[in-house]
Amino acid sequence: MEKMARIVVITAGGRGRRMGGALPKQFAEIGGRPVLMHTIAKFWGWNRDAEILVTLPPDMVGFWRTLCENFAFKLPHRIIEGGESRYRSVANALAVAGDGLIGVHDGVRPFVSEAVIEACFAAAQIHGGAVPVVDMLESIRELGADGASWAVDRRRFVVVQTPQVFRSDLLKAAYRQPERADFTDEASVVEAHGGKVSTAPGNVENIKLTQPMDMWLADQMLKQRRL
Amino acid sequence: MEKMARIVVITAGGRGRRMGGALPKQFAEIGGRPVLMHTIAKFWGWNRDAEILVTLPPDMVGFWRTLCENFAFKLPHRIIEGGESRYRSVANALAVAGDGLIGVHDGVRPFVSEAVIEACFAAAQIHGGAVPVVDMLESIRELGADGASWAVDRRRFVVVQTPQVFRSDLLKAAYRQPERADFTDEASVVEAHGGKVSTAPGNVENIKLTQPMDMWLADQMLKQRRL
Repeated sequence: MEKMARIVVITAGGRGRRMGGALPKQFAEIGGRPVLMHTIAKFWGWNRDAEILVTLPPDMVGFWRTLCENFAFKLPHRIIEGGESRYRSVANALAVAGDGLIGVHDGVRPFVSEAVIEACFAAAQIHGGAVPVVDMLESIRELGADGASWAVDRRRFVVVQTPQVFRSDLLKAAYRQPERADFTDEASVVEAHGGKVSTAPGNVENIKLTQPMDMWLADQMLKQRRL
Repeated sequence: MEKMARIVVITAGGRGRRMGGALPKQFAEIGGRPVLMHTIAKFWGWNRDAEILVTLPPDMVGFWRTLCENFAFKLPHRIIEGGESRYRSVANALAVAGDGLIGVHDGVRPFVSEAVIEACFAAAQIHGGAVPVVDMLESIRELGADGASWAVDRRRFVVVQTPQVFRSDLLKAAYRQPERADFTDEASVVEAHGGKVSTAPGNVENIKLTQPMDMWLADQMLKQRRL
């Protein structure tokens, strides 16, 4: 089977609400430079021929360019103006993306391993779509109406990471659907369109930086060269 | 309403299999002393009148006593020989526990906040049972037979922590049931017996130390006096 072109869409559209109104976390500095630069560098290190598209809020594009200048960050990437939602941002990127395999990755997951990226692209080439997953280690409860909740067996579930990788024809077709509130990731969009998604092993360090504690942890890990 | 006696069962029965056969994680040193000492100290700091019971594998009781001597750890706690499972260990502790409110806590969660402990005991006094929960931040997939999986809406779920607190009469009655494979925490045992469980807000730092990365993080956090 011919190797298909590798395209990476890195989503960096967050506005930092969960972090308490501070600098959106993709721009926060860890280990001496913004999170998003670490993420781009990881994909560049994985495959220097991959085309990297980065979706940013339109009003933060200028800020990002200034950051790149200040940090002398020169790794090649194309900036895509994002939309009002993750779905719209990815759709904007797909509108200009070429054909091949497209991996969509959270800009705030700088610690994905190169092995996981490669495994997801390889599985997507075979199966059409693949996402990295890890065991769920925490107990969970399902919420009902009126505040009720009940225990559910965590062994029924896995935790999903990114990159979520798909053949470009399948992904682009799925993104022609109208947006829905339950589209929480690319796999949910593809499945709503009838597509199948396979899984590959993720890496436990591939956390999504969402909490202040996460930023502190990420900074510490980089300073100690643990990742 | 009269304030009921506070009893805490700290489970420390793990054998460290997930950590790769090394020292079971409740005994591993973070911030200068074993994890379990941090956990006991947290509950002692919360309420010095609380009765603290600690379940340990029978063949590690001697080792624990030696650790307490070496670290000059003198906070009061009663050692209970654990059983083959978490369920059996808790049942052994309940067999000697007095009456009041009983909170069951993972020995490897040293970072629970005093406010969360207090909130769970207060809610359990009103509702009979309460567990701390935090939002699920990760996307999840449900696993089917033959390797299939599908996206589910994470907003339907919350992540459960400990302490899980119950009125002693309800908890003791629930633990008279035969053990089942789907008893993953105390709430699942109480619910299987027909009991109701309310929720209280947990604290995001209250992680369960299960992975090598967690141990490193915990050590760093303590060294920097972040917790």
